Amino acid sequence: MTIEGKTEARMQKIRLGMVGGGTGAFIGAVHRMAARIDDHFDLVAGALSSTAEKSLASGRELGLDPERCYGSFEEMALKEAGRPDGIEAVSIVTPNHVHYPAAKAFLERGIHVICDKPLTSNLEDAKKLKAVADGSNALFILTHNYTGYPMVRQAREMVAEGLLGMLRVVQVEYAQDWLTEAVEQTGAKQAVWRTDPKQSGVGGATGDIGTHAFNLATFVSGLTLDSLAADLDSFVEGRRVDDNGHVLLRFEGGAKGMLWCSQVAPGNENALKLRVYGTKGGLEWEQENPNYLWFTPFGEQKRLVTRNGAGAGASAARVSRIPGGHPEGYLEAFATIYTEAAAAINAAKGGTAIDPAVTYPTIDDGLRGVAFVEACVASAKDNGAWVKV
Amino acid sequence: MTIEGKTEARMQKIRLGMVGGGTGAFIGAVHRMAARIDDHFDLVAGALSSTAEKSLASGRELGLDPERCYGSFEEMALKEAGRPDGIEAVSIVTPNHVHYPAAKAFLERGIHVICDKPLTSNLEDAKKLKAVADGSNALFILTHNYTGYPMVRQAREMVAEGLLGMLRVVQVEYAQDWLTEAVEQTGAKQAVWRTDPKQSGVGGATGDIGTHAFNLATFVSGLTLDSLAADLDSFVEGRRVDDNGHVLLRFEGGAKGMLWCSQVAPGNENALKLRVYGTKGGLEWEQENPNYLWFTPFGEQKRLVTRNGAGAGASAARVSRIPGGHPEGYLEAFATIYTEAAAAINAAKGGTAIDPAVTYPTIDDGLRGVAFVEACVASAKDNGAWVKV
Amino acid sequence: MTIEGKTEARMQKIRLGMVGGGTGAFIGAVHRMAARIDDHFDLVAGALSSTAEKSLASGRELGLDPERCYGSFEEMALKEAGRPDGIEAVSIVTPNHVHYPAAKAFLERGIHVICDKPLTSNLEDAKKLKAVADGSNALFILTHNYTGYPMVRQAREMVAEGLLGMLRVVQVEYAQDWLTEAVEQTGAKQAVWRTDPKQSGVGGATGDIGTHAFNLATFVSGLTLDSLAADLDSFVEGRRVDDNGHVLLRFEGGAKGMLWCSQVAPGNENALKLRVYGTKGGLEWEQENPNYLWFTPFGEQKRLVTRNGAGAGASAARVSRIPGGHPEGYLEAFATIYTEAAAAINAAKGGTAIDPAVTYPTIDDGLRGVAFVEACVASAKDNGAWVKV
Amino acid sequence: MTIEGKTEARMQKIRLGMVGGGTGAFIGAVHRMAARIDDHFDLVAGALSSTAEKSLASGRELGLDPERCYGSFEEMALKEAGRPDGIEAVSIVTPNHVHYPAAKAFLERGIHVICDKPLTSNLEDAKKLKAVADGSNALFILTHNYTGYPMVRQAREMVAEGLLGMLRVVQVEYAQDWLTEAVEQTGAKQAVWRTDPKQSGVGGATGDIGTHAFNLATFVSGLTLDSLAADLDSFVEGRRVDDNGHVLLRFEGGAKGMLWCSQVAPGNENALKLRVYGTKGGLEWEQENPNYLWFTPFGEQKRLVTRNGAGAGASAARVSRIPGGHPEGYLEAFATIYTEAAAAINAAKGGTAIDPAVTYPTIDDGLRGVAFVEACVASAKDNGAWVKV
Repeated sequence: MTIEGKTEARMQKIRLGMVGGGTGAFIGAVHRMAARIDDHFDLVAGALSSTAEKSLASGRELGLDPERCYGSFEEMALKEAGRPDGIEAVSIVTPNHVHYPAAKAFLERGIHVICDKPLTSNLEDAKKLKAVADGSNALFILTHNYTGYPMVRQAREMVAEGLLGMLRVVQVEYAQDWLTEAVEQTGAKQAVWRTDPKQSGVGGATGDIGTHAFNLATFVSGLTLDSLAADLDSFVEGRRVDDNGHVLLRFEGGAKGMLWCSQVAPGNENALKLRVYGTKGGLEWEQENPNYLWFTPFGEQKRLVTRNGAGAGASAARVSRIPGGHPEGYLEAFATIYTEAAAAINAAKGGTAIDPAVTYPTIDDGLRGVAFVEACVASAKDNGAWVKV
Repeated sequence: MTIEGKTEARMQKIRLGMVGGGTGAFIGAVHRMAARIDDHFDLVAGALSSTAEKSLASGRELGLDPERCYGSFEEMALKEAGRPDGIEAVSIVTPNHVHYPAAKAFLERGIHVICDKPLTSNLEDAKKLKAVADGSNALFILTHNYTGYPMVRQAREMVAEGLLGMLRVVQVEYAQDWLTEAVEQTGAKQAVWRTDPKQSGVGGATGDIGTHAFNLATFVSGLTLDSLAADLDSFVEGRRVDDNGHVLLRFEGGAKGMLWCSQVAPGNENALKLRVYGTKGGLEWEQENPNYLWFTPFGEQKRLVTRNGAGAGASAARVSRIPGGHPEGYLEAFATIYTEAAAAINAAKGGTAIDPAVTYPTIDDGLRGVAFVEACVASAKDNGAWVKV
Repeated sequence: MTIEGKTEARMQKIRLGMVGGGTGAFIGAVHRMAARIDDHFDLVAGALSSTAEKSLASGRELGLDPERCYGSFEEMALKEAGRPDGIEAVSIVTPNHVHYPAAKAFLERGIHVICDKPLTSNLEDAKKLKAVADGSNALFILTHNYTGYPMVRQAREMVAEGLLGMLRVVQVEYAQDWLTEAVEQTGAKQAVWRTDPKQSGVGGATGDIGTHAFNLATFVSGLTLDSLAADLDSFVEGRRVDDNGHVLLRFEGGAKGMLWCSQVAPGNENALKLRVYGTKGGLEWEQENPNYLWFTPFGEQKRLVTRNGAGAGASAARVSRIPGGHPEGYLEAFATIYTEAAAAINAAKGGTAIDPAVTYPTIDDGLRGVAFVEACVASAKDNGAWVKV
Repeated sequence: MTIEGKTEARMQKIRLGMVGGGTGAFIGAVHRMAARIDDHFDLVAGALSSTAEKSLASGRELGLDPERCYGSFEEMALKEAGRPDGIEAVSIVTPNHVHYPAAKAFLERGIHVICDKPLTSNLEDAKKLKAVADGSNALFILTHNYTGYPMVRQAREMVAEGLLGMLRVVQVEYAQDWLTEAVEQTGAKQAVWRTDPKQSGVGGATGDIGTHAFNLATFVSGLTLDSLAADLDSFVEGRRVDDNGHVLLRFEGGAKGMLWCSQVAPGNENALKLRVYGTKGGLEWEQENPNYLWFTPFGEQKRLVTRNGAGAGASAARVSRIPGGHPEGYLEAFATIYTEAAAAINAAKGGTAIDPAVTYPTIDDGLRGVAFVEACVASAKDNGAWVKV
């Protein structure tokens, strides 16, 4: 519950804009709910759709001032930067290929960016964006939202504290089934852009969910990937990107891993699962029941660590809102990323140091994610040869 | 995701006040987050604490206009009713014994009331409040928040559609462990008032969580309680209210039930669990993993119904925000009660009929809950004799 | 694995007969497999069916000497008692009403009896059988087989060692669904006798599975029942015995309990589940996944105790055969009862004391079981009044 | 329950010998219990240990005729082949490197062989044994015991019937933790030989449990492995064989797979888990709770198929002994292999055809298993290059 006290109005609210997220978009609405839960943002402007007309219609639904509903992100960046009450931060929730130009437009004007993942649709853009971000005094926050789950923070803390000893094995997977058939050929919006290399990038499942799995694995383990070998498939006829990926991982220091991402595994909704094993113990966590973390100190009984339950540590408590046994979910984990963004932005505004406990995914995480995808694709093209990342 | 589109600004926001919920209170913060998620309320006034000074301090934290931070609910009701921009609705989140006078004060001034459960601390107050509510043109919404879970709505729909046939057996339980020891004697705020009969009423566990279990059982089953027999205990020495209750239930029409509520069962956080069995099938649901519902048509395989998954119906979809596999939790279920309150209040404001799909707990549910608690206590005092409710 | 070494031929094999268990019977075959697993018995005689002809046919299938296939238990008792190589022990696996006369016939001839539960079909017979057993120097073993599960032994040991502190609450249930419809009217053999009061006794579900639940609860908790209040139903039209029972329990010393038994709960196969809570901790165990026991020391994390896993004690290890993670099941638990019977019989034969670790259900357990059923029926007839047991 | 009727003495019992399995051995005792459950074998001879003295001591414990306790398998093969009542079959339960010479000795004398897995400690021996078996009229049964689980049979049947459509993805893993530390250096017998390449072969975890996982995956899926790429580790210092293996699989026809085997994953006892996904559905099964199988037809709800429960098919029913809800475990699955061996041996004896429903692992399965291990090792040595199998 610690976060709750802090979130309620001790911080000044941040004026927020949004790129993408018009009527019918899934992730835009998620971002807005996430931003509201802890109440640190006011949504005041938007380039919500690809045309001025649709953007205005979507903005009206959200109660935005029509004047601040823009037909393009370029226009929004320009005009908002010129207003005394202009947005301080922007959420970018478009298909992947727009991330780079949009983020660039705002970062260059000193507007903080909260951007959906993956960072960009290709590594070249990712590197350019990294350069832009490094040259800007605005912050860049990447919404690898699963890192916001309290028990993910708990797992990371336990690894960092050495409770698992030296890590040996990481097993991570993200399985879905919604692309088991060729739904993109029926025009389903979410499927169409995710299976179009121009919009999503060269990775399909690898980019859409493999990056989440990869990010989660490194976030919790603290390990750095050295190289990978991948076997990617597009099982559905006519699909232009991978829909199933099998990846072997080698980390610096000798730990090994396996990563499976699939969008063609019937019976899986969002089955993101992480298991980490070291010389002293093992951890297991599943996104679909996220308030539980299983911990086995080697030679002892398996233990259930619950959010705000016995033995849960400070990292998890910081980002929990309600007592144990009352489940927090996906939106709350997402809200934590927004709240940490707010804390960092407010610190930046105030010229003070960011609380070192604040832990949001950065542009470097994003860059690593895109590099991961491209390495997977490169390895797969080279018959699964090991590729340095 | 249906609700999401609707919630975002198609409805006009409702000006909200709050009684109770000052700094450090648990449930007040929950109400505020719940009200924010779907964005239908603006919190603009509060009588947040029992003194003007504390209320002001808490209000400042929340960014309230100091002028609208009141020292008592009476003052708030009086002054807000007199303002052209006064509150349209109020959330009452105090200990139980304050529910009646506070709700009365607002209902009598035509201000809609959203009130925490149980309705009141005794049946006499409950009946008086019912009379007040019936005589008011303001609405009364009781936050039996568990009824807001999508899979609870799904279960209710499946029972109503006859998928279970004629109901025979209802098993419901709500187990916790936080009162296993005499924490109220250490001054822990949440424990102190809950174990004080003057503040909580004659029921301890029965009132605090037994009412939730009872409400959930009747909400899903659609059954009406005929009579009950109860064996209540105060296992912890010195405790003045029950901390464990065993209750047998007889429903009109012949179905039978068992209800267990306990706050002294180590290993249970908020283990609210409902199982319903009929001539044609059975259902099982657990609050701690709320996105899953188990359904067995008799003679067939057990099936997992998931929120927004295959075969989930309209009732669940209406109150879901995000795709299946991304867990929604306690706050989202609570938010649904607020959103349904908003829908009803807006309909009332506009003079239109409330959408029949809107399903929030009413004053009648509250009255039944208090009657349940008093019947439990009466039965227990009479050595578990059957008591008509 | 401890038991394994012991079981393999260090003990002399015991010559065994069987009453009931002819072709097509379920429980007779279970007894035979159970007797074989640890290899302490040789089945050499049988009165397997109600006619000499059928008994012979069944005996031939089992490879019995035709001369030792009898048409009645009376004949078998008489003739086997007269043979120098006659049976030393007999398994009685008939419908309930035959238990008393059959057990009496063998006990009176000094032949050890291994008898299925419930002890008898009524309390009068149970008391008479108790007198017979007390007057015989032959042993009486009741196959409340669930007490043979290693993790049930583990649970009992943990309670006895005080790891739960003083017990407060016992929750036990045994739910099935196979009598949801009137299968006895279709002639299904297992259903016919179980729903015939003349064969099964006054209790239906209470006698068939409620006694198992009750036995398990007292076996693990070590508590003695003081009184109970019951609400029994025969939900299926035309059924002559209860098919659903709701029972409140009061134990000596102040602990309380609830017991639910049902054969009309769709989705339940053999859902026997026990939960025990005390001042210091809680335990949970489920028969359908019997190698796991959940233990929560109050204020600490929930722990998974596994058969032969970390922290499992001597009581469980004694009756485990294979390493943890390789599940033992129902037949192995049943085999443990047989092996403990063999240990006791061999001690009796050798004139040595029975190893105090040997823990099999006795005639007293059986008497308590039948008393439990009759008390349930008496309470239910008296509108759920509390009945002393 | 079908098997039960058949097993009880309709078949003539088979005279069995055993090589290995002396006092203190784990798997020998398992084989003996497995052979007893369905009662088709009489153990009458043994070369139970590596010296005549120990073998005799072990044989006495098991009640064997001292004359038939041999000091070596060669002696047993020779003498038993010369007896009119000599063994008809032999169980070989030694460390891996003895499998080949022992099996050869018996097969060449027309004695049926039931042999533990893996087939041999190296591929050369495996091929030679295959030639011997092909040239013998005795049968060779390999105890890949996990294939005896009813729900594994069920899964195989469902795949074969096309319920999953065309297979795309196979995920299989077998994780343990007992070699997390260097227990072989403490002299622990089970660990010593399993980590000694001379006794176990070139594979450690791959040979010991990876072969089980591989066999299970192909048994259920019906797929044929085309090639693999492996990354093997010996994480524990000083260990001479792999203790963790990550393997990518490519099957003929285009399906892909991942296989993980580990003996250094704290919190895992015998966590063998299989998941198979096709164009029409998915299946999931776990060895530690083996009576359950999860099946999701694409676009429908996940379903729980239970042993002898609704919708379970003939393949599972054939090898089930007791009603659903009463768990059968590891020993019963093992017993099924023995019972199928008995059926095949009796058919061979009688000159009749083997029931086509009989499904035991053969020498070809064994050969494939050893080839799998050697391919893993070869790939790992070649930096994870793809290796044809």
